[in-house]
Amino acid sequence: MTNTPTPPYYAVIFTSVLKRDDPEYLKINDFLRQEAEKLDGFLGEDSARNDYGISISYWKDLDVIQAWRQNADHQWAKEKGRKEFYKKYKIRIARVEREYQFEKIYSD
Amino acid sequence: MTNTPTPPYYAVIFTSVLKRDDPEYLKINDFLRQEAEKLDGFLGEDSARNDYGISISYWKDLDVIQAWRQNADHQWAKEKGRKEFYKKYKIRIARVEREYQFEKIYSD
Repeated sequence: MTNTPTPPYYAVIFTSVLKRDDPEYLKINDFLRQEAEKLDGFLGEDSARNDYGISISYWKDLDVIQAWRQNADHQWAKEKGRKEFYKKYKIRIARVEREYQFEKIYSD
Repeated sequence: MTNTPTPPYYAVIFTSVLKRDDPEYLKINDFLRQEAEKLDGFLGEDSARNDYGISISYWKDLDVIQAWRQNADHQWAKEKGRKEFYKKYKIRIARVEREYQFEKIYSD
């Protein structure tokens, strides 16, 4: 679970169905995550997978999302993903306007 | 994976860490989902869980999100969740501005 700064900032919501489990897919995802982290303005990522996957990356603004879209490694991985890994995916670009949180101070 | 209408619409991004797995938690979640579906303006939900959970619900506008926040069953479940189920959670309210999708037309 990612800690993000006070809104506003942006979230890229990526939901996907894979053709099959593939260790290469996970390896490429790890590599891409490391590449994204190099960008000033990448704020973190949350992801989980059941029969479909949800991955939410957080970004400072639309400019850095655009820079990431144009990143050559990202474009290569996207092309490979469409050819080999994904049955389908959706990308939603959303502006985070408010944030609330709860944390238990003591455990029981 | 939820099909949503053309943006703009809203996403409520809920990430959470549970104290422990609990079948009652899943039961309450199913019940709440059915209650949310009764609201005109609830557009669907995507969720997945690993060591933390991500649940994204989609809504027509902020008014229906507000109506859902004030729903008595939802408030009861939230209170119970804070007491019994959650170690921590974050709620982000985001305005979905753009959406793209990809779907393989043939399978291989």
